[in-house]
Parts: sequence; structure tokens; C-alpha cells
Amino acid sequence: MNEKLSSILQSIQPADLNWMEKAKEKTAQLVMPLRALGRLHDMAEQLCGIQRTLEPNIENKAFLVMAGDHGVVAEGVNPYPQEITGEMVRTILAGGAGINALAKCADAQVWVVDMGIIPDLEPATLQKQDRFFVRKIQRGTANLAKGPAMTLEDAEKSILTGFELAENLFEQGVNILGTGDMGIGNTTPSAAVGAVITGNDVKDMVGRGAGADDERLYKKQKAVQNGIQVNQPDPKDGLDVLSKVGGFEIGGIAGCILASAFHQHPVIVDGFISTAGALIANTLCGSVRDYLFSGHCSEEQGHRAMLKFLKLDPILDLNMRLGEGTGAALAMGILDGAVQVFKDVLTFEQAGVTEKDGSGS
Amino acid sequence: MNEKLSSILQSIQPADLNWMEKAKEKTAQLVMPLRALGRLHDMAEQLCGIQRTLEPNIENKAFLVMAGDHGVVAEGVNPYPQEITGEMVRTILAGGAGINALAKCADAQVWVVDMGIIPDLEPATLQKQDRFFVRKIQRGTANLAKGPAMTLEDAEKSILTGFELAENLFEQGVNILGTGDMGIGNTTPSAAVGAVITGNDVKDMVGRGAGADDERLYKKQKAVQNGIQVNQPDPKDGLDVLSKVGGFEIGGIAGCILASAFHQHPVIVDGFISTAGALIANTLCGSVRDYLFSGHCSEEQGHRAMLKFLKLDPILDLNMRLGEGTGAALAMGILDGAVQVFKDVLTFEQAGVTEKDGSGS
Repeated sequence: MNEKLSSILQSIQPADLNWMEKAKEKTAQLVMPLRALGRLHDMAEQLCGIQRTLEPNIENKAFLVMAGDHGVVAEGVNPYPQEITGEMVRTILAGGAGINALAKCADAQVWVVDMGIIPDLEPATLQKQDRFFVRKIQRGTANLAKGPAMTLEDAEKSILTGFELAENLFEQGVNILGTGDMGIGNTTPSAAVGAVITGNDVKDMVGRGAGADDERLYKKQKAVQNGIQVNQPDPKDGLDVLSKVGGFEIGGIAGCILASAFHQHPVIVDGFISTAGALIANTLCGSVRDYLFSGHCSEEQGHRAMLKFLKLDPILDLNMRLGEGTGAALAMGILDGAVQVFKDVLTFEQAGVTEKDGSGS
Repeated sequence: MNEKLSSILQSIQPADLNWMEKAKEKTAQLVMPLRALGRLHDMAEQLCGIQRTLEPNIENKAFLVMAGDHGVVAEGVNPYPQEITGEMVRTILAGGAGINALAKCADAQVWVVDMGIIPDLEPATLQKQDRFFVRKIQRGTANLAKGPAMTLEDAEKSILTGFELAENLFEQGVNILGTGDMGIGNTTPSAAVGAVITGNDVKDMVGRGAGADDERLYKKQKAVQNGIQVNQPDPKDGLDVLSKVGGFEIGGIAGCILASAFHQHPVIVDGFISTAGALIANTLCGSVRDYLFSGHCSEEQGHRAMLKFLKLDPILDLNMRLGEGTGAALAMGILDGAVQVFKDVLTFEQAGVTEKDGSGS
């Protein structure tokens, strides 16, 4: 394994249980029945454990939307033409996509990364070109149904690229990251990554993506089955899985997650593609799990099984299946609520409110 | 029935299906797979139908937190002393409760109403007294386990009080309302209202509220069973149910909901107590259903059955059970997201993005 990557993996620490305990003690004093705000308390305490503090801060929010193209579209897995990947990158940079609307509500910046789309988007023709990073690993992956999607070196490179971009944002003061994706055909490699790592049946992991009909769904299942048979990826080896059946944006997302854990910042994972990235990252280093929040459960078949494997309870469940980071952006407001409650609500003592039965709790 | 109330009920119109249809046409053009943001599209379209527009506006948000005391606490249904109702009203006015933190995140104003708490809170001793309305119907309800909780006149008065306060906020420019409650013991009348109107078994509707142990849970079930047996409320008659087994804050919440429907504004209902108010309002006028959003599914047993009866799908499900309006406040951010997507996302044509298979959809 690449030396830098290996040293990153060795440096990642779990979240700090002592800070989480202290946070739980604070929660118990808030002027309300014990833990009456349920998962909001859990979220606030996890943030305290991640940031090693009783004053969690997630005010500076950013998204990295990772874009890539996929050779497996040759198998007829998707009803949309491949040019849409580049067109949607343009649309996000123009501020007109779903992620822009929802990131605006969350007061989060949006950055877009060309991790390996086929066309070259001329920076001068793009709006907000300062929000665009060109880090093209290759012009699209190879067809995973016929052989490895990428080399092992390119798999490492895609992870390290995501890592460095996220690290750069943290150095600029970002304290919570959301992951997003854009790539025609990318539910196919994500389903393959999910099937390999979770061990679930391919048929349960392959869904309709952006809108596959029955025929395309069947082609997609075949492509994933063939890809696994031809490549024989090792479920315990995230790099092997990524290189054989993954994608450049999936590697980039895995890198973002590693950077968040390495720098002790929370990261909200979006839907199906982002969670495939989380599966890769988790295989490389189990401690990253502590730094993850699942923004939502996607409508895409197979997402729930991925979340179950990672023991992640999604914050939202609103039948969404767009990707781009939209589910993570919407969930950021819920994390803000969790922090605000932890910060602003008075204790019984401060409020001068009688405790239960005079018994002190 | 009181003449004013009767005339209000006759004037309420359903949401406008034409505007909802137009909104659906707009959604279909957004640059994403068809309806890929799932329930966010449904929410935006419902808002269009409520406000009769393709430019829904929910920027001016307010909460009415309705407070009341309950005679049924004499049955030993609650582990917390009754003084807490007044103490928590003070805490909310001091900005230190859960609803304050979450309303702040939602950028919503919080108003508190004394609908019938036992103590008199001297305005001069309160912080933000201009956010406090004293509309005391009585000093707490009578014990519903022994007879009617209130007279029919007081039931009407509590509804009309909620109506007028909400109407007043709408006249000041508020365009979305959240409902909230505060009242030691108020899960007991809410469970009674729920059991009567939904027809579900009392044991399935009575939960642990702020923290009843097994003994108190049994007392609570007995109190509700006795209350229904002694009073024989008519499930089809919301005023009868409210007067016999309800509470002043529940009536106030029902009034807020009627005002929202009457003035064609959306209203986000919080948890168990607020939904009891929605059941009362819905019994009086079925069209109010169109104006309701359910902020969250409470952890309180019985809430899901109430929502099912009203055919409401809660926006959030985060194991919360605090009340005060907290679940509604947290869900306001999701509705904001729905509106932002509807407003900001470009169409395929505007974005210059190829549609599916060149087939035009």
C-alpha cells in the first residue's frame, strides 16, 4: 500500500468516549424529561466525542461533490446519456441543481471535483470556476463487468485526492463536511461495492438508480454479477474492491471520510453512492465509523442494507434518491438543532425548575 | 354551537388541487430524475395548493405554545409536580427551553399562551412578557376521570381563543404556524382524545409521557378508561370530546389549526398533544387535513395511531417526546428545503441538460 495512505490509516483515532460521557452528563441536567429529545442528544454527544469538547461547532459547512464517469454504462445499465455527468457538473457550478438549493438552506459551501469525467470542462466557460477542482484520474473508469474498473494505483490516487481536498477545506476552517456525487451510471459500481462488502445478494443490492426499467434493471444485475465473478474482489480489502468494481468519485468520497476522521471532524454521508464510499473507508479503517452521520436513507434499493452493515441510523427518510449530497445537506439542519439544544437549553438548576418528585432526577 | 365557530367551520375550503397540479408540472421539469427528491416535492406542492401560488412563501414563522393544567393529575398519572407547568412557561419566556433552541434554528418566533394554568404568572416578573398572552379559561381542567374536564362553553372558548391568537399572527404577516404545548399531565387527556376519536384501544393509546413507571402507567390507563366510561364522549363530535376528556391547550391548538385552514396558511403540528388538537379540529372540519404537516412521530405510544387516522406521514422520526413544539420546529427546516428546491432548481431547458434517452422525459 502507498506509504502516505498507510500512515493516514494508522493515525486515525476513534471518537473520544470520555468527552461523550461528559456530554451525556450535561444532557441529563437539561430542563426536560431525561433524554426527551431522543436522537438529538445522541447526535450532540457524538459531535462532542468527535471534536473532543463540550462546545461542538459545526458552523462552517462544506460539500465536496465528486464527479466521475463509468465504463460500465456500455452494458446498458442507465437510461440517461453519459454527457449528463459533465452537464450536471456545469449546472452545479451554475448554482442550479438540487444540492445548491439545499446547501443554501444549510448555509454550506459547495465544491465540485472532476475526479474522472470524460469531457474536459474549460474552466473559463464555467460559472464559479473557483469552486471547481480538476483532479481527473482517468477519463472514466473501465467497464467493471469485463475487468478491473481501475488500477490499484488509481484507486489509491482517488482516495488520496479526496483526502487532500477535504484536508484543504479543514485547513480553511471548515468544521463539518458533507459528501456528494455526480456520475451517470454510478449506482452500478456502488451496488457492486455494497454487494461485495456487505455480502448481501446482488439482486438485493441493485436498484433502479435514476430510472432503470425492468430490462435495464436486469442488465444492471448481470453487469454487477459479471463484475464480481470476473474480478473476484476481496471483501476485506477496500482498495481491492474499489479498484475492481468501484469508481473515481467513490474513491474520492472514501478519501473525504478518511480526512474527516484523521482531522477529527464530523462528516455527513449522503445516499447510495456516498455510502459505498463509506464502506470502502470503513474497510480500510474501522474507526472512521465514529465520525460518520448518515444524512438519509435513500429510496435506492440496497441502501438500507449498507447502512445496517455500517450500524448507521439515517437521520432522514424522505424517499429521496437524487444524490449530489442532497440528503446530507438536508440533514445538516438537524445536526444544527442538536447542537443548539445542547448549547442553549438551561439546566433544571439554572431555570429554577423543580425536578421530578423532588428526588433530584 | 357558538355562531362564530360555526361560521368559521363553514368557510374553510380544501387546498386548491389546480395549484397542486400546476406545481407538479413544474416539478417534472426540474433538472433531476423525475421526482427524485421524493417527499420534498410533495411538501412543496402541498404548500402551493394551500397558498394558491407557484411561489410558496414560509419565511415568516411563528409558534404558539399553549399551556394548561389538568385536574386528572389527582389520579397520580404523572411523576412530575404540577408547579412545573408554570415554571416551564417562565423558562420558555426566558428563552431557555428546547423549543427556544429549535425555533432559533428555524428562525421562528415563539409566543406562549396561558390557556388555563393554575398559577398567575405576574407579567412584570417574566422575561419577554410581550411574547406572553394570558387567556386563562379556568385554573386547570376538572378531573376527567370523574366527569367532564370542562363545560361545552369553555371548550368552544378555548378553540376560539386559539383561533383568534393565530389569526392575529397571520395579520402581522406570519405565513407558517407551528403548534406547541406545555402542561404537566397533558399526555393523559391527549391519549383519551386519541382513543375516543381513532377508536383504538385505551391500552394502545396511553404511553409513559414524561416518564411514568409501570404503576403510573396503569393508573393512567385506568384514568382514561374511567373518563371515557363516565363521560361517554361522542367520537364524531369534536366539541363533545374536547369538553369531556380534553384540555384547554388542546382546544387552543385545535383553534390554531382551524385558523390556519381558514386563512390558507400551512400549520406544522408537533407531537402527541398537538395531534390530539388536530384530531379535534379534523372532527369539526375534515378540510383542515389539507393544511397540516406532521413535524415528527413522537416516541409516545399512540402517536403513530393518531397520525395514521389522520393519514399524515410525519416528516421526522427521531425518538423525540418533549412536546413544546420541538418536533414541529425541527421539521420547519425541511419544509424550507422543499421550498428552496422548488424555487431555485433550474429546469432541464434552463440548465441545457440532455433529457432521458432524448425522449423528452
